[in-house]
Amino acid sequence: MADLDQNTVTEAVIAQMASTPDPRLREVMASLVRHLHDFAREVKLTPEEWLGAIGFLTRVGQTCTPYRQEFILLSDTLGLSRLVNLMDDQANRVGEATETSLLGPFYREASPQFGYGESIAVHAKGPEMMLFGQVVNEQGEGVPDAIVEIWSTDADGAYDLQANDPSTMDMRGQFRTDAEGRYAIRTLIPLGYSIPMDGPVGDMVRAQQRHGFRPAHIHMLIGAEGYRELVTALYLGDDPNIGSDTVFGVSESLVVQPRLGLEQAPDPALPSVRYDFRVARRAAHDKGGRVGADPSKVAAD
Amino acid sequence: MADLDQNTVTEAVIAQMASTPDPRLREVMASLVRHLHDFAREVKLTPEEWLGAIGFLTRVGQTCTPYRQEFILLSDTLGLSRLVNLMDDQANRVGEATETSLLGPFYREASPQFGYGESIAVHAKGPEMMLFGQVVNEQGEGVPDAIVEIWSTDADGAYDLQANDPSTMDMRGQFRTDAEGRYAIRTLIPLGYSIPMDGPVGDMVRAQQRHGFRPAHIHMLIGAEGYRELVTALYLGDDPNIGSDTVFGVSESLVVQPRLGLEQAPDPALPSVRYDFRVARRAAHDKGGRVGADPSKVAAD
Repeated sequence: MADLDQNTVTEAVIAQMASTPDPRLREVMASLVRHLHDFAREVKLTPEEWLGAIGFLTRVGQTCTPYRQEFILLSDTLGLSRLVNLMDDQANRVGEATETSLLGPFYREASPQFGYGESIAVHAKGPEMMLFGQVVNEQGEGVPDAIVEIWSTDADGAYDLQANDPSTMDMRGQFRTDAEGRYAIRTLIPLGYSIPMDGPVGDMVRAQQRHGFRPAHIHMLIGAEGYRELVTALYLGDDPNIGSDTVFGVSESLVVQPRLGLEQAPDPALPSVRYDFRVARRAAHDKGGRVGADPSKVAAD
Repeated sequence: MADLDQNTVTEAVIAQMASTPDPRLREVMASLVRHLHDFAREVKLTPEEWLGAIGFLTRVGQTCTPYRQEFILLSDTLGLSRLVNLMDDQANRVGEATETSLLGPFYREASPQFGYGESIAVHAKGPEMMLFGQVVNEQGEGVPDAIVEIWSTDADGAYDLQANDPSTMDMRGQFRTDAEGRYAIRTLIPLGYSIPMDGPVGDMVRAQQRHGFRPAHIHMLIGAEGYRELVTALYLGDDPNIGSDTVFGVSESLVVQPRLGLEQAPDPALPSVRYDFRVARRAAHDKGGRVGADPSKVAAD
């Protein structure tokens, strides 16, 4: 039995994991161990720092509830979510499909259904806007019966999940496109907001003196039979943090600005955005990944 | 605003963290982000796998209680704890001091005090052994009034923290060396044991088809005024898993075997181990790190 040293310990761990029957799990864990150990060696991680990290990760896990997913928030603020999203896009995005964005920690399944042009602001109040357009396929043809899901902050920059009673849904809903693939959604003009700062990820962001804000945006999830699910978001171009999103989610092609006088605007009195979402046919192997989840579904009990 | 890609996203995250005032935090986080992203790129981490990891880490955090530290267990089974321990040893171990080992997840502060030769097995029953010897300094001189802390499994391989009522302490205690630095501890012969397999780390170890066992061992923590705290453990050489510890803790110099007929054995009727622990003077800068903690102290509420 040879004693382990700082370098051989890594190979000893990987050797012990070599019995893993699932080849993908074996590959991922070996790579994880190598990079984790490389990191610890590179910074010469001390026992005190190691214990600080253990305490931090424990708090992150214990901050998770059915209404809050602090580990997704950590992944988002470390840029990991966006990286996974970009790799998935490169592997699976077809041609001219709309760019994707992060699902984020505020998505909820089974949001209420609305009709064409109705407002998702059931309880919230504030300046209104209209979002309308078409869901189209790669040939530019309208996709009927697509489900357009939207979730957004209220005019104060807060999601329903952050309200005193997070069980009531507001500022989210599902629309169905008409025979020409058209949709129209009345909503409030969203406000940029700080990520939740009362947990361990907030402590980290404060210690880094980052502003912690996301630019104002509207989350969208488009699903249609036979098409790859599209998770994206539209960002308001006049937000002061449009270039410094704390979760690195913005793409130029997703930046919009509500304005009056748009052709075909369902309500000419409201500042409006026209955005056509282009969806791609689902390939046989394509499971249609989402970088995110409804927090109540991620082991938060 | 240039769109991020799989490579530039890493630099964007590090640039946003460049405002961190604490230079060490800035250095550690930049290295972490680089290695974390390198890992994700190397294995082309998919959204499904990413979400699996989020759920896994959430469960690890939520499995922690004041009596259980699942994140330390995860670090142990990934070899990270041992690596940090080895680096700390190299940086701070002086000359011929006894080698260190992992504190592990079963340490508890404020264990009961015992006199020379008394037994730590207050409730547990089983075959007994004696551990005795001296705490010595670098010159081989006995160190009087050193505190020798011990914690161990019972004869079934379980710690008090794993009992139905984990609030009662057993099989652990503190001894004080006499004027010649001598100590003697009566205890049960420990049994090798599986790490806790009913949580997410157990799920991981099972998926890797690792045996999940630690060889039989006795944890020790030696503290004396002016000396560097020594966290170590003695391993029983006849354990079948002595060469395949699931947390990579064994060093040759810490392997022992209880036997009858030892000179100076306090009780000739008991299989005994003589082990002299050599402690080193504390350097001015040396904070005396421990790779581990009492689980009730690590944000487990």
